[in-house]
Amino acid sequence: MSRLLESYAQGAWYSASDEGAPLMSAIDGSEIARVSSSGLDVAGMVDYARTVGGPALAALTFHERAALLKQLGLTLMAGKEEFYQLSRHTGATTRDSGVDIDGGFGTVLSYASKARRELPNETVYLDGAIEQLGKKGTFLGQHIYTSRRGVAVQINAFNFPVWGFLEKLAPAFIAGVPSIVKPASQTAYLTELVFRRIIESGLLPEGSVQLLCGSARGVLDHLGGQDSVAFTGSADTAATLRSHPNVVGEGLHFTAEADSLNASILGSDVAQSDPEFDLFVKGVFTEMTSKAGQKCTAIRRVLVPQDSVEPVIEALKAKLEKVVVGDPADEGVTMGALASIDQRDEVLKSIRGLTKSATVVFGDPDAVDSRPGAFMAPVLLKAGDKTASEPHEIEAFGPVSTVIGYENTADLLDLVARGKGSLVASLVTKDSAVAREIVLGSAPYHGRILVLNSEDAKESTGHGSPLPVLVHGGPGRAGGGEELGGIRGVLHHMQRTAIQGTPDVLTAIGNKWVTGAKQTTGDVHPFRKNLGELKLGDTIIGGPRQVTRADIDHFAEFTGDTFYAHTDPEAAAANPLFGGIVAHGYLVVSLAAGLFVDPAPGPVLANFGVDSLRFLTPVKAEDSLTVTLTAKLITPRQSADYGEVRWDAVVVNQDGDPVATYDVLTLVAKPEVAS
Amino acid sequence: MSRLLESYAQGAWYSASDEGAPLMSAIDGSEIARVSSSGLDVAGMVDYARTVGGPALAALTFHERAALLKQLGLTLMAGKEEFYQLSRHTGATTRDSGVDIDGGFGTVLSYASKARRELPNETVYLDGAIEQLGKKGTFLGQHIYTSRRGVAVQINAFNFPVWGFLEKLAPAFIAGVPSIVKPASQTAYLTELVFRRIIESGLLPEGSVQLLCGSARGVLDHLGGQDSVAFTGSADTAATLRSHPNVVGEGLHFTAEADSLNASILGSDVAQSDPEFDLFVKGVFTEMTSKAGQKCTAIRRVLVPQDSVEPVIEALKAKLEKVVVGDPADEGVTMGALASIDQRDEVLKSIRGLTKSATVVFGDPDAVDSRPGAFMAPVLLKAGDKTASEPHEIEAFGPVSTVIGYENTADLLDLVARGKGSLVASLVTKDSAVAREIVLGSAPYHGRILVLNSEDAKESTGHGSPLPVLVHGGPGRAGGGEELGGIRGVLHHMQRTAIQGTPDVLTAIGNKWVTGAKQTTGDVHPFRKNLGELKLGDTIIGGPRQVTRADIDHFAEFTGDTFYAHTDPEAAAANPLFGGIVAHGYLVVSLAAGLFVDPAPGPVLANFGVDSLRFLTPVKAEDSLTVTLTAKLITPRQSADYGEVRWDAVVVNQDGDPVATYDVLTLVAKPEVAS
Repeated sequence: MSRLLESYAQGAWYSASDEGAPLMSAIDGSEIARVSSSGLDVAGMVDYARTVGGPALAALTFHERAALLKQLGLTLMAGKEEFYQLSRHTGATTRDSGVDIDGGFGTVLSYASKARRELPNETVYLDGAIEQLGKKGTFLGQHIYTSRRGVAVQINAFNFPVWGFLEKLAPAFIAGVPSIVKPASQTAYLTELVFRRIIESGLLPEGSVQLLCGSARGVLDHLGGQDSVAFTGSADTAATLRSHPNVVGEGLHFTAEADSLNASILGSDVAQSDPEFDLFVKGVFTEMTSKAGQKCTAIRRVLVPQDSVEPVIEALKAKLEKVVVGDPADEGVTMGALASIDQRDEVLKSIRGLTKSATVVFGDPDAVDSRPGAFMAPVLLKAGDKTASEPHEIEAFGPVSTVIGYENTADLLDLVARGKGSLVASLVTKDSAVAREIVLGSAPYHGRILVLNSEDAKESTGHGSPLPVLVHGGPGRAGGGEELGGIRGVLHHMQRTAIQGTPDVLTAIGNKWVTGAKQTTGDVHPFRKNLGELKLGDTIIGGPRQVTRADIDHFAEFTGDTFYAHTDPEAAAANPLFGGIVAHGYLVVSLAAGLFVDPAPGPVLANFGVDSLRFLTPVKAEDSLTVTLTAKLITPRQSADYGEVRWDAVVVNQDGDPVATYDVLTLVAKPEVAS
Repeated sequence: MSRLLESYAQGAWYSASDEGAPLMSAIDGSEIARVSSSGLDVAGMVDYARTVGGPALAALTFHERAALLKQLGLTLMAGKEEFYQLSRHTGATTRDSGVDIDGGFGTVLSYASKARRELPNETVYLDGAIEQLGKKGTFLGQHIYTSRRGVAVQINAFNFPVWGFLEKLAPAFIAGVPSIVKPASQTAYLTELVFRRIIESGLLPEGSVQLLCGSARGVLDHLGGQDSVAFTGSADTAATLRSHPNVVGEGLHFTAEADSLNASILGSDVAQSDPEFDLFVKGVFTEMTSKAGQKCTAIRRVLVPQDSVEPVIEALKAKLEKVVVGDPADEGVTMGALASIDQRDEVLKSIRGLTKSATVVFGDPDAVDSRPGAFMAPVLLKAGDKTASEPHEIEAFGPVSTVIGYENTADLLDLVARGKGSLVASLVTKDSAVAREIVLGSAPYHGRILVLNSEDAKESTGHGSPLPVLVHGGPGRAGGGEELGGIRGVLHHMQRTAIQGTPDVLTAIGNKWVTGAKQTTGDVHPFRKNLGELKLGDTIIGGPRQVTRADIDHFAEFTGDTFYAHTDPEAAAANPLFGGIVAHGYLVVSLAAGLFVDPAPGPVLANFGVDSLRFLTPVKAEDSLTVTLTAKLITPRQSADYGEVRWDAVVVNQDGDPVATYDVLTLVAKPEVAS
């Protein structure tokens, strides 16, 4: 008997109390492992995640969590060979395994990197700008995101045993929410192996990740409004889970990636002689055969201009004829197996459904492969009645696509919409105007749209590849969810809350200085303070400095910026906004820097940028400028001996009118370096 | 018999085929109107919204929709007197009516203003930055939002017959999605009157708004993945609607604002002698009596330090004793009626539930008001066992609150969480550190948190007021939804899609020039082109200009910016980032302006700002600078003779290394002015 897969629950590996069900190799039908969750204390796992994993993650900032994920990704990547070995039994070719294994670890690394660059070194995320709620500025609003106090339960599909769980786990981890990973049983042995290496690495805080091998029946009974379930699988199962009382009545967050009749569209501008025609055919072919077509994102509907239907079918046939189906370890094999014999039966059943209104133009669904593995040759269909429901609604989850002809753009957009929501569509066109029309006309039905032409084809990651930085998910039939998308995927695990209060209160809550909050001007210039000494609200006031007409003239001559508003009194007087000679905006900020800078070497290493500079009141000759610079945001880097300090800068004239407002960005040394 | 309320369906007013059910005045029990939707073609309304209203809205940009909303808001505001007259019968005092009527129109105006300022003058909204997906820059990603192709069905509660529908309609309208408004029958006569004025104004495109008076039973049967239902009402009804097959299986977007056991918290730092103590008591009192406590946001749980329980109760009693309940039209009345006798029965039933673990300390729920209106005096309770479920789970939707004592912060946060998700909480504290601890500790359970002290009290809009610029909604029991929140509320009606393509394709789709897309350098300097002539990608290249050590010395002296990296060769050499004297960043951008500016008067009126300036490579003496300026985003204003043009600026050195990148913001005249 093969090994019984274990769950990782409440800090220990758990073996089920029965023998479990056998899991068969997709290649040779041999028993690879057994799986069962009998006797597993699922309620205990949920409680453990909430009481041990959640607090452990809450104690870390976004950057600290990112640093752990980065180490984890590198560790897993270094040991990936054993995963490739085992992956073969799922029916995957080496290339398929790369998408799953390297793709999964790459997603972890991408999240580590995004979090360091785009999130603060904090536990709270500020959403959008301050809203002024009263005229005097004592009452403001700020939206914040905080980590939910629950657990993220991830119910994965069989087709991506590695990427599938990591693409869900990584954003939850960055968000500070513990995960319970539930792999699909069919390929759980690969998930379990990777998970084992994760636990052995000792990198992740105790309780932050747990593994549930076997049935997860009843897990939703233990979940509530602070928890989430991210499900990938069939629309039927998604609907059942979504009807659970805790989803319907308790606010349990449920998202799904489900059936999706993804389309690939050939633009009517593309001739058979164009390189784009070949790109289109190659794209469809790749999606039919990669992972043996077992991808939520695979192309099911091949939408081409009516007069391209036959040429496209012929071109596809020529490629499909060369496909060699078999054990990926065998020489010359180009397409592996489906995940199981059961899965193949499902696909054949779906093809029978499709043939109600479409005809098979390549392959023979009745000729079943006699080898012990779950092998199946590709099948291409041609739609008869293009508005019949079958090609738009039946997802044959294998190497199966249907070619459908369209008349014109309106017809095409109607056909696309008949999919009732998809994860992805691709469009091959040479014409940007065609791209705009079709993309905007079909975007509401899609989570992602790839526009391909000969210019981006080389760098394109293809129709079927979700990327960590782009949202993955689609409306309607595709489940209505969103995953990934960089920081968007992190925020899905956090609660947005509008906070109302004084500038000082908002400064304390967000750890970002807010206009109107306390400002501290002391004996020490804030540029003389290192990252450890500097505090939010530390302020330097510089000036006044008078701007003379001579200054303006000189600046115009020196820089070459002789715009009439600075040089020609008559023309400047006619300008509706100025009414006379004004100082250059760049002169104002240059002089302001002269007023606030502290010249001697010290902890401030560089000014690396300026944000949101606005010129509010024109500066006339003889005006006097005063600048106030206040420490606004302090972001130490995890892996450098310095960090970023964002300063709020306000320049006013002699009447106190604001002349310019902006943020100054500097790099400031940490104490150990500065001292 | 009173008048039968009409629905506005498919471009015409519709009277039901039966007599309808009577609606009684909350004040005197008289019959105000009758309501029925018998015979109404609801499926036809849905189809009309999709095929007439949707396309009409899609033809307008965000700014054009905003301009219509602004006119509508002003028109309604000007005629508000008749709404106040009718509102009295809902039981509302003049002040209550103000929250509903002025609050509703104010929300419409706020959305008009936000959309003009924060959305492009376009139909597509770009979400986040470009993602570079390949090293060469030919393959990029951009998230966009497009309008859903369905209808927004809005099922409203009886308590805000005006604000309740406008706060849902305004964001949907800006998003380009048609609305079907379904008021709660009890107060539908006021909604119908306002709606009638809307239709009479003729401002809104045909099909963009429809009204459904009477039962909406079965409406969800006609909705799918492009549609949404926004429901305000009881958690039970919300759960029933959320179980509908089209929500569960078709991706119909369902959001709810439901039961919410909102808390107000007195910080443990507040002494009875502090002004904050009075603010706290006043806040609770206001929320108990405003709208007779019939607000989703009203305070149900009064959480105070254990030793403040009795003082708070005494202070509340003193105020509650002075409440005069009655017809708002009568002199001296300070609190109106509940919406109906049925509603009062519901509240009394809830109070009986609460008294399982709490005791009544003010008011007498058994002493039923004998007048014909739905009058009820306030009732204050004191919790016995603070962890009993009743005070945290039973929402008595009337002038009813329960005082609960807490021991310490951990205890307080546990009590707050027992509400299982609320729309809003308020916290009265003098201490920003206390604010941070309690806000971050309870934010995951709330949609909004108000922090009140003596500094913001004057400007505060209070615990109970949702604001158009802040999200309204809460997790868990509160329904798990979000409404309002400025542009966030608009995006709820749009689909986010990740678009992958070349720079040229993304430029065409988003109408915003993307780095790498085509640049056009012609004979005419782009500063000589007015808003009608200028095209995305129009480019001017200026330079090269050499920066000498003399320039740097001079700039330091002239501006006073003598930072050592610009002036002290030895110290600059020791700087880890520079390794020698570097030019000021402000010098670089000043010189760049001199290289791209076109000095003579023309359509470019002013440079009003700079965004996202980053200094990438240090500029050393003798380096040569070249600047490329490209028209990136062109935004004509609806109500001005100019618009904004955002220019992409890249400064490179003699080796082609980028020295500085930024956006330059200018105002440019429209053709009719410039010519």
